[in-house]
Amino acid sequence: MTTVAFVGLGSMGLPMAKNLIAGGFAVRGFDVQPSALDVFRQAGGQPASSPAEAASGAEVLLLMVVNAAQAETVLFDGGALAALPSGGIVILMSTCPPGSVAAIAARVADAGRRFVDAPVSGGVVGAVAGKLTIMAAAVKETFSVVKPIFDALGDKVYLVGDRAGQGAMVKTVNQLLCGVHIAATAEALALAAKVGLDGGLMLQILGGSSASSWMLKDRGPRMLEHDPEITSAVDIFVKDLGIVLEAGRQTKAALPLAALAHQMFLSVSGQGGGAADDSQVIRAYQALNG
Amino acid sequence: MTTVAFVGLGSMGLPMAKNLIAGGFAVRGFDVQPSALDVFRQAGGQPASSPAEAASGAEVLLLMVVNAAQAETVLFDGGALAALPSGGIVILMSTCPPGSVAAIAARVADAGRRFVDAPVSGGVVGAVAGKLTIMAAAVKETFSVVKPIFDALGDKVYLVGDRAGQGAMVKTVNQLLCGVHIAATAEALALAAKVGLDGGLMLQILGGSSASSWMLKDRGPRMLEHDPEITSAVDIFVKDLGIVLEAGRQTKAALPLAALAHQMFLSVSGQGGGAADDSQVIRAYQALNG
Repeated sequence: MTTVAFVGLGSMGLPMAKNLIAGGFAVRGFDVQPSALDVFRQAGGQPASSPAEAASGAEVLLLMVVNAAQAETVLFDGGALAALPSGGIVILMSTCPPGSVAAIAARVADAGRRFVDAPVSGGVVGAVAGKLTIMAAAVKETFSVVKPIFDALGDKVYLVGDRAGQGAMVKTVNQLLCGVHIAATAEALALAAKVGLDGGLMLQILGGSSASSWMLKDRGPRMLEHDPEITSAVDIFVKDLGIVLEAGRQTKAALPLAALAHQMFLSVSGQGGGAADDSQVIRAYQALNG
Repeated sequence: MTTVAFVGLGSMGLPMAKNLIAGGFAVRGFDVQPSALDVFRQAGGQPASSPAEAASGAEVLLLMVVNAAQAETVLFDGGALAALPSGGIVILMSTCPPGSVAAIAARVADAGRRFVDAPVSGGVVGAVAGKLTIMAAAVKETFSVVKPIFDALGDKVYLVGDRAGQGAMVKTVNQLLCGVHIAATAEALALAAKVGLDGGLMLQILGGSSASSWMLKDRGPRMLEHDPEITSAVDIFVKDLGIVLEAGRQTKAALPLAALAHQMFLSVSGQGGGAADDSQVIRAYQALNG
């Protein structure tokens, strides 16, 4: 039985850890929130008192923390990497800038451990259902070792390259399109509203035409509400489009649409709406155009 | 039997006119290209020697010309409006700026004729199949009279408002999203190519995720080709996003994403690629980023 040390039992990590337990893995978990550890214990997991304790003797150390800075803290400051046996595998599944992922991977390799860059998409719904999309970059042999773990977490598992940072780059490209599509839907619906066209009818027409996008259908209806239920916050796209632009800077690629969409999310955050549902990027257009 | 005068028998107009003939309408057609008139005659249409001859005695004068300037020439300079019996109905189906449509409608009403603003989407494929989306604006009574014509041309017929220009505005909003989505797909795929990710795999991943759009699936594969078959040209979006921005100016609505996407299509046109397939907007990113 493979032992997986799982660090980061939040809204994504906890259901992922549960799916690993259900898939027959021995899972030792850690989170800074004691309440998350309690739920994890009730689901059959083995709580640890630190990342290092979780990693000690494990074959795999899986990180589902908030960002690259937390991953670095866990691995290098918290002692988890040193506790992981030599030849053990670190899997980083958080959304991080590709350059940061490559830098972390180099330090892991220097310490004699193996590394898999494997961000996910599919949200909490996909995490609970075990239907995440997993965009992995690793050398083939290492990927083969962790493939059963990915199969327990997702139903679309891709090996996108052999260099750490390539998985993060695929996720970055994915978020570029998601962010631009949400802002474009807002720009379109704000124009329609300004000239007195019915928003519901517009969504019906646009959703059935070549103008359609996944985000138009998902976020569009919530743009017509004043203060909709929050499924993902404006500030998440402030962060994710920030990662997109950082990747552009590091690879010397101008990304003008992503940069502009980022400004629209920033504007809503600046208006005090950072915690609102990301459909509310339409408030930037309302501020611009009255 | 309703007689329809049909002006503009191009790649969209000719199959539309054929569908009207098949639907039991008497269709009198005109086009500046004699070859188009020959094909129209073979399909059972009655060719006319001028727009005015086509309109004389007809109940409906349908315009599927290239732009608003051509519609004005046909109606006001070419004598077609004067030839149309009093109370006859002008249907403008070309993609035109909403402000121009409203101005044309006012002149038609001043002349004692009725007006329907009814642009379409669905392209040549939709025109041939009789499956266009039709976005009509007209007073209800007039719409009812021409509804059988629309039903012969499209399968998604919407009455979006009662003021001329509202149909054109819905089409404008549609084109805003189409143009931004094509440019966004190009920005994403150009970044992926620059960092060495496989384009085909990227399209597979993105097309199955929340990053997907109709344009990503349709134009994306052709962006991976150097000189793909032309289904719609770069210069069509130079024109259509120009109409979007003109609508923004007239309604005092800032449309930053549309303005930026327009620049990318303009760049490719400026490089000499205006006649290339519109997927080749990716050349703007190649020029920007090497």
